[in-house]
Amino acid sequence: MAGPIITLLTDFGLHDTYVASMKGVILKICPDARLVDISHLVPPQDVRAGAFLLASVASDFPSGTIHLAVIDPGVGTERRGLAIEADSHFFVGPDNGLLSRVLRPASAWEAFSLEDPAYWQPTVSKTFHGRDVFAPVAAHLARGLPPRALGPPCTPQSASWADAAEVGEEILGEIIHIDHFGNAVTNVSREVFERFALRSRVKIKVGGCTISTIAETYGDMDTAEVMALIGSHGYLEIAINQGSATLSCRLHRGDPVTVSSKQ
Amino acid sequence: MAGPIITLLTDFGLHDTYVASMKGVILKICPDARLVDISHLVPPQDVRAGAFLLASVASDFPSGTIHLAVIDPGVGTERRGLAIEADSHFFVGPDNGLLSRVLRPASAWEAFSLEDPAYWQPTVSKTFHGRDVFAPVAAHLARGLPPRALGPPCTPQSASWADAAEVGEEILGEIIHIDHFGNAVTNVSREVFERFALRSRVKIKVGGCTISTIAETYGDMDTAEVMALIGSHGYLEIAINQGSATLSCRLHRGDPVTVSSKQ
Amino acid sequence: MAGPIITLLTDFGLHDTYVASMKGVILKICPDARLVDISHLVPPQDVRAGAFLLASVASDFPSGTIHLAVIDPGVGTERRGLAIEADSHFFVGPDNGLLSRVLRPASAWEAFSLEDPAYWQPTVSKTFHGRDVFAPVAAHLARGLPPRALGPPCTPQSASWADAAEVGEEILGEIIHIDHFGNAVTNVSREVFERFALRSRVKIKVGGCTISTIAETYGDMDTAEVMALIGSHGYLEIAINQGSATLSCRLHRGDPVTVSSKQ
Repeated sequence: MAGPIITLLTDFGLHDTYVASMKGVILKICPDARLVDISHLVPPQDVRAGAFLLASVASDFPSGTIHLAVIDPGVGTERRGLAIEADSHFFVGPDNGLLSRVLRPASAWEAFSLEDPAYWQPTVSKTFHGRDVFAPVAAHLARGLPPRALGPPCTPQSASWADAAEVGEEILGEIIHIDHFGNAVTNVSREVFERFALRSRVKIKVGGCTISTIAETYGDMDTAEVMALIGSHGYLEIAINQGSATLSCRLHRGDPVTVSSKQ
Repeated sequence: MAGPIITLLTDFGLHDTYVASMKGVILKICPDARLVDISHLVPPQDVRAGAFLLASVASDFPSGTIHLAVIDPGVGTERRGLAIEADSHFFVGPDNGLLSRVLRPASAWEAFSLEDPAYWQPTVSKTFHGRDVFAPVAAHLARGLPPRALGPPCTPQSASWADAAEVGEEILGEIIHIDHFGNAVTNVSREVFERFALRSRVKIKVGGCTISTIAETYGDMDTAEVMALIGSHGYLEIAINQGSATLSCRLHRGDPVTVSSKQ
Repeated sequence: MAGPIITLLTDFGLHDTYVASMKGVILKICPDARLVDISHLVPPQDVRAGAFLLASVASDFPSGTIHLAVIDPGVGTERRGLAIEADSHFFVGPDNGLLSRVLRPASAWEAFSLEDPAYWQPTVSKTFHGRDVFAPVAAHLARGLPPRALGPPCTPQSASWADAAEVGEEILGEIIHIDHFGNAVTNVSREVFERFALRSRVKIKVGGCTISTIAETYGDMDTAEVMALIGSHGYLEIAINQGSATLSCRLHRGDPVTVSSKQ
């Protein structure tokens, strides 16, 4: 039988040994774990981007997958560590909002505060809980340890961000992620957008662009025209066929996005 | 017994969740698949570079390996999807030339058009066939599904590029790939080059350089001299020992390369 | 039972097929090998950085792990290839100092010169021993071949670098690695530093900064103040909470670091 799957999402980059250290520690505790990288290039300390990326990919994995996420600017301070079970997936990481988005679509979840050092490395550094706390905890879950063994139940910190919503005659949102192709993903969900777009033709203002072309896929457009579409994450996305909307419209993460009715 | 191997080659980059989404989908369908990244840093939409890289690495893998390649500027349009069996390897991806180079050395191949949605995700987005069509197809092949079950036989698009060849008194080629070290790989194959070089001493013109030093390995030369050698891909390569020929000769992908007789 | 683990550390980058070629070759010889990347972004030809990274991560992996390390500017010349067994770990790579740091903490080691071509690829290129010599050797070790079968015992080249040490009233060291966050890791080990710091309060001069704040973790400090701490590698490290000490103090690998008594 195939071993348990542990995914890894961090802001550790790919130049260092930090990710490999976590993998080595996991394999010592759970020798048949199978390790799948999500990304290690989340912008440094950007908990919010990490939370979005984790929530957008977790459900693509099989039930029982353990998702180890470490973006941890508060490492070594009093911030809590978490293990969460939500809809048959497990999540391990710091309690700083990183795991908060995965709780939303889940029909049921339980969260536990990581307090029992029996499941950590014998020595815990103050600078690298990814290796010393979170990786061993993920490995113990992969061996079948029930999350309640890790510490008492708790309520994770909720994050201050959320999906965009209608405000008056507009949807007010923002750019939440810019992908490798220069597509800018907003926090305007398919549901919110489609409800609005049913009632009137829309225009979208973002950065230096006003967009009134809603496409179904990139190749629908010429290679110069900026379009909006519901991307594969399930959110409104600003894109250019074979080009970079981010460059063309001078977009940045956090930029406001306004969807309104076309006059 | 070790599970089936699926390699992945894309232009998706390493900042996003796109690659991990494909891996999650594969592991849901074929839990014991073993995933090996080839590269996800093919230049965006560069089908030609992807075709070269895929062809240069595929045969290093064991028989039965499934190679999943997604560089797909036409996603969601009418372009066809392919599954190919060639010399006991399997290839899955869009029919845009990306898989065309792997057909050349094969003694025998069969190609099938991906038409049976039974082997896709239940819902297929218009923007991400990597996750919704190609990954599940690769996973079904890994479970042992014969490729003919995926759709009718077809003839893949051939690509317009080819290896360099002799034209009159010269070999006219081009730079097809620039590697991480700044070595510039040309489309002049070992066979074409050695046949030519048997007859006369050669000089090579490319970018700002004229090269008449043919080396066997990088360390044969001082660290300032530009050399040409047959690289590990089996093609003529322009290189500098511990330096970057690309910077020194100001080379770009697509630049013409001329091999002629030294006067 | 889970298959043998082979880690990979190279300067090959992530744009090319070089790493995947090595993995394919390994899987042909040892089908159940499990491959874990350490990093492929060691600065090109930087044997010293590779040696540091390898030594800092190897012991995080289980006993029996095979570490395949290829930073090999002398490929194809007369430099020797090595297989080393040290404290139940195996190391394979060129004999150029890359493997020298892993010998230091080991209680016992044996090294062998790679001389028996029976364990290489049938054809060995002069430019890519990673694929043609080191990967197959690692795969044979993973299948259980004893290292002494690979060639005669030998003494690896020692490297000219070492940890910093006290010289007169100071510790004279240098920056040995700059990580993804801009933290600058020095070669001043915890032991050397703590012995010195027990006797007097210290100040540290490096690049444009003089630092007298010794912290326990990044979050101890405000986000503007430069600090020194013993990092997760076990070495003195220069850092800024959520910032880049490398940028703020204008640091480079190789820069001298001086630890002295605070007046």
